[in-house]
Amino acid sequence: MITTREVHLVRRPKGIPVLEDFAVVETAVPSTGENEVRVETLIMSVDPYMRPRLNADQPLNAPLLGGGIGRVTESRNPKFQEGQLVRQGVGFRETHVTDGRALQPLQRDAALPLSVYMHALGGTGITAYGGLLDTAKLKDGEQVVVSTAGGAVGSVVAQIAKIKGCHVVGITGTEDKAAWLRNAGLDAVINYKTQDLGPALEAATPKGIDVYFENVGGAQLDAALPRMNIHGRIPVCGMISTYNGGGEGVRNLFNLIYKRVRMEGFVATDFAHLNAAFVSDMTDWLKSGQIKYEETVLNGFHRAPEGLIGLFEGRNTGKMLIHVAG
Amino acid sequence: MITTREVHLVRRPKGIPVLEDFAVVETAVPSTGENEVRVETLIMSVDPYMRPRLNADQPLNAPLLGGGIGRVTESRNPKFQEGQLVRQGVGFRETHVTDGRALQPLQRDAALPLSVYMHALGGTGITAYGGLLDTAKLKDGEQVVVSTAGGAVGSVVAQIAKIKGCHVVGITGTEDKAAWLRNAGLDAVINYKTQDLGPALEAATPKGIDVYFENVGGAQLDAALPRMNIHGRIPVCGMISTYNGGGEGVRNLFNLIYKRVRMEGFVATDFAHLNAAFVSDMTDWLKSGQIKYEETVLNGFHRAPEGLIGLFEGRNTGKMLIHVAG
Repeated sequence: MITTREVHLVRRPKGIPVLEDFAVVETAVPSTGENEVRVETLIMSVDPYMRPRLNADQPLNAPLLGGGIGRVTESRNPKFQEGQLVRQGVGFRETHVTDGRALQPLQRDAALPLSVYMHALGGTGITAYGGLLDTAKLKDGEQVVVSTAGGAVGSVVAQIAKIKGCHVVGITGTEDKAAWLRNAGLDAVINYKTQDLGPALEAATPKGIDVYFENVGGAQLDAALPRMNIHGRIPVCGMISTYNGGGEGVRNLFNLIYKRVRMEGFVATDFAHLNAAFVSDMTDWLKSGQIKYEETVLNGFHRAPEGLIGLFEGRNTGKMLIHVAG
Repeated sequence: MITTREVHLVRRPKGIPVLEDFAVVETAVPSTGENEVRVETLIMSVDPYMRPRLNADQPLNAPLLGGGIGRVTESRNPKFQEGQLVRQGVGFRETHVTDGRALQPLQRDAALPLSVYMHALGGTGITAYGGLLDTAKLKDGEQVVVSTAGGAVGSVVAQIAKIKGCHVVGITGTEDKAAWLRNAGLDAVINYKTQDLGPALEAATPKGIDVYFENVGGAQLDAALPRMNIHGRIPVCGMISTYNGGGEGVRNLFNLIYKRVRMEGFVATDFAHLNAAFVSDMTDWLKSGQIKYEETVLNGFHRAPEGLIGLFEGRNTGKMLIHVAG
C-alpha cells in the first residue's frame, strides 16, 4: 500500500498562525482506478490568499488548499501519460489519485526552470500581469507605486511597469529586498520599517501616483491615497495587513472622491482570457532577463506550515515554495 | 451706492463648524461696467462638499464658495437680459457684478418651482443620476443600498433606483426621514441610530448588494462591504463621516478583492455629457410625481452659516436651501 502525507489545519489561528495550528498526517493512497491517475507533488506554492481562508473557508482536519506542480506517476486515463507534468490544486498532499478533471497539463519551456511556473509563469505572474494591465489599465510612462514590491506578485508588477516605461516606486520592509529592487531598476524604493512612509512617499512621487498596486491596506493605503492623481487606479490584489485581524482602519478614502480614483478588486482567475498573451510575454521577459525573480525554497513536504508562517512574518524573498521531490 | 452682504469664513472650524467660524460682512457693490451684469441672489445651496473645503481650500475672509440661482437686475452685457434667471457659483454674496462668464442661463419649466433647480434638477440631482447610472452602471432590478437616503442626493438615488425596478434599501438617521422614505416606496429603511446596522443590513439585503451608493464612509461602509455581491459597485459620492475629522477607520476593504468590487469616486462635473438626458428624465419624473422631494428652507441671507452647521448636524430633511429674496 502506498501512503502519503497531507498538511491539515487542525485549529483556527488567532493572529499569525503557529505550528500548532497545523498537523502533518499520514494516510493511505487508494489504488488507481479506471480513468484515474496518480500524481506525485513536485513543488507546492505558499500564497498570501491562503491566510483569510484559514479563518472560515478552509475545512479543519482536511488538506490545506493550495496549488502545486506534480508529475503523473501512474495513468489509467487516456488523457494523461506517465511522466507528464501537471498543475494541481488539490491542496497540500504528497501523492494523490484523481480522475484528472482538475489537472491542467503544463507546457514547460525547457530553457526555464520548472519553479518559475509556480510564480512568474504561474498564478502570481498572471495576477501581476492582469492586475496591472487589465484591471488598472496601465499606460506607458505612468507613475506607479507597488506595495509588497519585494514579494512574488509585487516584484513582477514593478518590473512589468518598468518594461512599460513607467516611473516605479516600490515599498518593502527589509533592506535586502530594497537592495534587490534597486538592482532590478526601480526608480525609488521605500523601506516602510525604517522610513517615515508619508514623507518618503511624497518625496518619491513628485508627479503623484497614477496606479497604486495594493497588496497591504491599512497605513500604506492611507499614505498612497492623498498622492493619487485624478483618474488614478488602485487595483486591489491583497490586503495582507488585515488578514491576521486587527490593524489600523483606513481613514483617507475620501480622497477617492475628488480625484475620481477607481479602486477595484480582482483575482487571478479573472484573467483566463489573457493567458496566451501572458505566457508569450512573460516567457520572453524571463529569457531576456527583463523579469528577474527570487525564490525562498524550503525543502521537504513537512515544512509547508513553516513556509506559510514565514510568509506572514515576511521571512521570504520573492516566491515562497516548498520543494517536495527533486 | 449699493451695498451687499457676504458670508465669510473667518477661522478654520475644529470638528463641526460653529457660528463664530463665520461672519456676515457688508461691503460695497461696484457700479456695473461695460459688458458686465449685476445679479441678485434668490436662492443659495448648502452642500456637504463645502465642509472639507473649510479646512484648507476655502480662503479666509472671503465669500464662502457655494452655488445659487440669481436674477440679472442690470445688464450692460448683450448676452444677458434684465430679469433673466442664472445659475451662479460666486459664493455666498447677496448681490454681485460680473462679466457673466461664470453665469449659466437657467431654462425653467414653468410647471416646476424654482427651488427644484437647486436640488433634483440641479447639482444634487445630476450627482445622483450620474453616480447611479454612469459611475455605478446600475442595471434594472439590481439590489441597491443608499446611505444618507434621506439627504438631497440619497433621496433622489433611492427613487431613481426604484424607477429602474431595483430592490432598494435606504439608511438614514431619523424616524422622520425613515417614514418619508418608506412612503416614497423603498423596500426597506434602516435607522442606523436606533438599529444595529450589521444585522439590520443583513436582514434587509437577502440577495446581497449590487450597488452601495456611498455618502458616509466609516461604519456604514464597513457594514456594506461584507454584503457586496460579485462585481458589485460602490460609487463614492461623499464620506460625510470623515469630513469633520476623526471617525472610525474602515476595516473591511479586503472584501473588495474576492468579490471584485469596484469602488469609484465621482463629482457632478463628470456628467456634463449626460445633462440633456438628465434634464429630460428628471423633469418628467418630477412632473409625474415619481421623484418626490423635501426641502429645508431657511429664510434670510444671514442664515447661511446656520444652514451649513445644521447640515452637518443632520437637522435638514431633504435639500438645505437659503432663500435670500422672494
